[in-house]
This record gives sequence, structure tokens and C-alpha cells, in this order.
Amino acid sequence: MQLGKIRGAIHSTINHSFYNGRKLLIVDYLDYKSKPTGEYVIAVDTVGTGAGETVLVIDEGNSARQIVDRANAPVRAVIVGVVDQISTRD
Amino acid sequence: MQLGKIRGAIHSTINHSFYNGRKLLIVDYLDYKSKPTGEYVIAVDTVGTGAGETVLVIDEGNSARQIVDRANAPVRAVIVGVVDQISTRD
Amino acid sequence: MQLGKIRGAIHSTINHSFYNGRKLLIVDYLDYKSKPTGEYVIAVDTVGTGAGETVLVIDEGNSARQIVDRANAPVRAVIVGVVDQISTRD
Amino acid sequence: MQLGKIRGAIHSTINHSFYNGRKLLIVDYLDYKSKPTGEYVIAVDTVGTGAGETVLVIDEGNSARQIVDRANAPVRAVIVGVVDQISTRD
Amino acid sequence: MQLGKIRGAIHSTINHSFYNGRKLLIVDYLDYKSKPTGEYVIAVDTVGTGAGETVLVIDEGNSARQIVDRANAPVRAVIVGVVDQISTRD
Repeated sequence: MQLGKIRGAIHSTINHSFYNGRKLLIVDYLDYKSKPTGEYVIAVDTVGTGAGETVLVIDEGNSARQIVDRANAPVRAVIVGVVDQISTRD
Repeated sequence: MQLGKIRGAIHSTINHSFYNGRKLLIVDYLDYKSKPTGEYVIAVDTVGTGAGETVLVIDEGNSARQIVDRANAPVRAVIVGVVDQISTRD
Repeated sequence: MQLGKIRGAIHSTINHSFYNGRKLLIVDYLDYKSKPTGEYVIAVDTVGTGAGETVLVIDEGNSARQIVDRANAPVRAVIVGVVDQISTRD
Repeated sequence: MQLGKIRGAIHSTINHSFYNGRKLLIVDYLDYKSKPTGEYVIAVDTVGTGAGETVLVIDEGNSARQIVDRANAPVRAVIVGVVDQISTRD
Repeated sequence: MQLGKIRGAIHSTINHSFYNGRKLLIVDYLDYKSKPTGEYVIAVDTVGTGAGETVLVIDEGNSARQIVDRANAPVRAVIVGVVDQISTRD
């Protein structure tokens, strides 16, 4: 998993029933100090998050399909949780 | 998923029935501000898009096979939708 | 697999039973001389490791699911061992 | 898929029956203007191509196994076609 | 597949029966001119190779599991052969 911050949303018509009513969010990847890396991913929201929140993203098809509980979903990246706390030592 | 812009098409004879009549498009990857990143992918079109359009690309084999509804298709990257709107905050 | 060093932990509520009671660690990737590369991953601990330790990380869904012995776990990266010794020649 | 140009061949004894008599080619990855990116892959030839030709490479295990029609082949990258034409607009 | 050169070995206790008695090697990735790229991988040896040898590495879980002939092995990267010869043209 990686840390990410919600930047916004994408509106697009995807011709597959899995995407009916799904929210697609633009997530900036963060480094371990919570700074944006410049990379991003468009991920399916599964936790009801919004712009500015720090989240965990998992980017693997089979994991994503387990999280959304749909074995045949065409999905690779999902937001799996809001980050409550990051504890690090340097 | 990633944002992309259609740059053009590839003409090639691929010796597998899945590719009969399929359109292969060159897609420039875009950053979240819709600027090309310099990276690209050759993706199967599933939405009838054309040069210059901004699209969503999913690059994972099992997702791609669900989108084209062929469990055995040798395909990894597909265009899944045209982007209607991008809502971001900086 | 890659070498990593434990930097800290992430606290997040993940809405999937697999993550009940699991420790999520921030792991800095190391080069073969044990210097941080600047990249990191958030991995599930399977060995009871802690901050500062050098570990082996495997980042592939099906391998991770074998290590945690849960065929349906939504997991991609796991810590599989503490490194006892690195023997190299330059 | 990505564009590639055949640079040469690798001779190696691989202890798995799938590789008996298979040609392993070094493929330089190309950008969309057909310039080498500096990256390469060693791919299994499935089309009878040779040095200097521009080809399409697919680098995903399950796709590769479909192309070679061997469900258990230990193969990730294959050359799937010779490129006849690239149509782009800038 | 990629070209690699064996740099050394890792000693670690991995709590999964697949790793009992397996040799874990540090492999520097090489470019097509056999120069190290700065990237490396820790791979399972399947050919009895040693430090300084040029090898082929395959880094995909399902391929790796076929090579080691264990459908449930938690393994992603394996050394599949020693390179006998590289034939290129510039």
C-alpha cells in the first residue's frame, strides 16, 4: 500500500456495470513524510472519503476485487482506509 | 487507472483471434493537470474514441479481460472511458 | 524481494476483516548497500519486527496471500523475514 | 503494450521444457516517436522477427501465456506482432 | 526477463516451508551492454549459480511458481538460467 491524498474526482462514463454509481477519485501519492511525490492514481473510493484527506491506497487487481467484494470487477486501485496516524522515527 | 490522451494508432498483425478487428491506440499518459508525462501505452479501444480525446486507461490484465468480456484475451491495457470532467482542488 | 528498513507504523481503519489486528508498517526500501532509496511501501508485518530492523519485503499479491495463508486476503506487500546477514562482493 | 526494436538475442540454458527451442530476443523499448528509451526487455519471439524490426511487446504473464497457448508457461514478455505503421498527430 | 549479475547472498529466516534450504541471491540488474543499472532484486536461485555470473531473471509470480514447480510458493523473482552468449547489433 501507499499513502495518498485526495485531490479531486473524475467524471467519466465507463461501460461496465461495476462502475455504476462508483466514485472515482484522483489520489496524489505521498512520501512517508506526507509530501506529494508527483505521481497519482485514479482509485475507486470504498470508504466515503473526500478532498484533502490522507488515505491508504492498494493498487493490485486481486486485492481490489476482494475489497469491493466483486470477483469479476475490472478494478486495480482502491482507497481502503483513511489514515488516522503515522508514527515514524528518522 | 490513469488519465491519457489519444495520440494515434498502431497497425500491426497480431496472430491471435482476439485482435481481429481491434483498434490499437497510442495513449499519452497525462498528469492530473492533463499535461503529458512523456510515458505512453498502446491500449485496446473499447469505447470508440479518437485522436485528441482525454480518456481513462486501466492497465491490468484481469481488469482488461473483464472489460472486453473475454476471459482468455491476451490484453493488459484498455481504454475504459472518455473523461467528461476533472474536478480538482490544489 | 527487496531489502527494507522499518521506519514506523500506520494507524488506519480498513473495512475488511483481514486487517483486524494487523500491524501496518512503513518500510523504506534499501539498496544492496543498505542505503535508503527514497522509495517506501506500507507492508503487513508477518514476523513481529520493529522500527530500525532490516527486513525482506515481497510485493506481489499471490505471494503475500500465501505468506499470510489467506487465499482471499486483500494484501500485496508483506514483510517475510528479518535479515540476518548480507554477503556481497563488489 | 509497448513499441520495441529488436537489438539481438540471448543464448541461455533454461531448465524448463517451455524454453526448448524458443528464441529469446533483446528488445529495446521505443517511445511513440520510435526512439529508444534506454529500457529493454528480454522477450520470447512468437512471430519470427529479427534484428532491427519494430515490434509490439506485451509484458504480462497471463497475456503471454495466452499468446503462446500454454497455460503453465513461465513467461511474462512476448513479441506479439511486427508493426506495419504508426499513425500519430502531435 | 532481464539480465542480471550475482552480487551476493542474503541470509534470513523466512517463516514458510518453501524457503527451507533455498538460496536467496542479490542480483544487480544489467542493461543490454551488461552494465549495472543500479537496480537489484533478491531472487531465488534455481540453477546453482554464484557471485559474478551473468544470469536471466524472471520477475513474475506465476512464472516463478512454474519454474520452481510449486503452485503455492510465495515467490516472485527467480534466476532461470546462466547467460551463455549475448548477440547484439548497435
